[in-house]
Order: sequence, then C-alpha cells, then structure tokens
Amino acid sequence: MFQIHPQLAADTLPVLTLGVSQVLLMNDSRYPWIILVPERTDLRELHDLNEMDYRLVWAEIRRTSLLMTDLSGAHKINVAALGNMVPQLHIHVIARQMTDAAWPAPVWGKGDAVPYAPESLNNRISLLREAFQAS
Amino acid sequence: MFQIHPQLAADTLPVLTLGVSQVLLMNDSRYPWIILVPERTDLRELHDLNEMDYRLVWAEIRRTSLLMTDLSGAHKINVAALGNMVPQLHIHVIARQMTDAAWPAPVWGKGDAVPYAPESLNNRISLLREAFQAS
Repeated sequence: MFQIHPQLAADTLPVLTLGVSQVLLMNDSRYPWIILVPERTDLRELHDLNEMDYRLVWAEIRRTSLLMTDLSGAHKINVAALGNMVPQLHIHVIARQMTDAAWPAPVWGKGDAVPYAPESLNNRISLLREAFQAS
Repeated sequence: MFQIHPQLAADTLPVLTLGVSQVLLMNDSRYPWIILVPERTDLRELHDLNEMDYRLVWAEIRRTSLLMTDLSGAHKINVAALGNMVPQLHIHVIARQMTDAAWPAPVWGKGDAVPYAPESLNNRISLLREAFQAS
C-alpha cells in the first residue's frame, strides 16, 4: 500500500491529490515550496514511472510551476528530483526570489526550516488548494 | 539565433544534439554530469517550453537518465532545472554514487570542479555519443 515516507510526512503538510501525485507543502516559510509525490509504490527515480505516469507527472509539475509563479510572483522556479536522502520518489517545485534566504544557491542544506505559524499555515494550504482546484 | 550561454559553454563540452536539446558534458570528473539545453531562444523556465517541446524534453531527460544509469551504475540520478545563476533554460542530469564528493548533498556549490584529463575527456565524449546514438 502506498504511504508517504515518514521523513516527507514530518516535513510537510498535505494540500490535495492530483491525478497521480500527492501535493505537499513544505513547512518552511522561507520559500513557497511544494513537493509532489507520485502515489505509486516502490519508485525511486523519475524514470521508474511508466511512460503514461511519467507524462502525467510532468504535466503536474508544469501545472504546479505555473500556479506557484502566479501565486508568488516568483523570480525563478526550481524543479528537482534528487532523492539522495529520502528514497521515495518526490519532486521539489520551489518558487525562488532574489531576496530569499538561499539565493542564488539551491535551497537544500541552507540553514534550518522556519515553520509557518499555525494560522498562516492553514491560510496557505487553503489558498493552494483553491488555486489547484481552479487550475 | 540560438546560442549556448557563455557560462555553460565555458563549463561543458558538446556531446551531440537530440531532437530538441543539446547534450553537454560538464567538465567535472567528480560526477557523470550531463546538461541538456533545449535549442530554443529566450527560455528560462521548463514551463516556457510549448507543450510539444515540453514533452519531448522530458522524453530526452528520461533517455539521458536511463543511459547514465547504464553507463555509470549510478546509485541515484539527480534531475534538476534550477537556473538561478545562468538564466538560459538548462537541465542537470547527474549520476550520483554514495562515494562521490558531495554525497548525500546536492552537487552544486560543493568545492571546485575537477576537469577531466584531455584524453579521458575525449574518451568520455566518444562513449557518451555512441551510447546516445544507440539509445
């Protein structure tokens, strides 16, 4: 049975599920940062997805990137599937600003996450859910 | 007219051109590291590609990932489109080993590139070119 990896579950909040991927919000208020996790068991690599799922996941990445650009006015979207630490296939979609905490470096390994305040977290998730549903 | 960004041109060697992307080898012998640059002008984001090109580029990423896995016996493939420093759209496909210089961190910003020796560079490019042509 498909389950989100415990490390991803600990670091994120669920937003909604698309056709293939669960959309998770990284609980780090320094960056608008979405993680997509295809709901398929035993995948580590993007190319482990079958061809149909691979296409669908890339369509979901595109949809997420466009939506994050609209919501955040991002200077740059970073898309990455790394998975060196957490083996479950997951894709980062991060809206970067030239004023953010890590710019122009990648976000990984730069200081500690700054969790959202509870109310702002709920607002953020509602906003994202509505934006995905409208997209 | 399409031109590879000078920074990418300085850091890489050309391998061959696929349907949409130029395949470049990063001149850093610490990691098998390919950069794909879609031959389209004025693109910064993956989602700037039109839908047809977007699909083709993702098929090229898949092809590159599989080929790199075969050639290197990679423990993990890292796929990323960042572009915070070099604005021209380019996609990293990096074969990672648990013994490599940055593992398990991402490769960016970890020490300096170690260029290939000239002969080993030529061999590497030939090997890659043959592998792409056979794939």
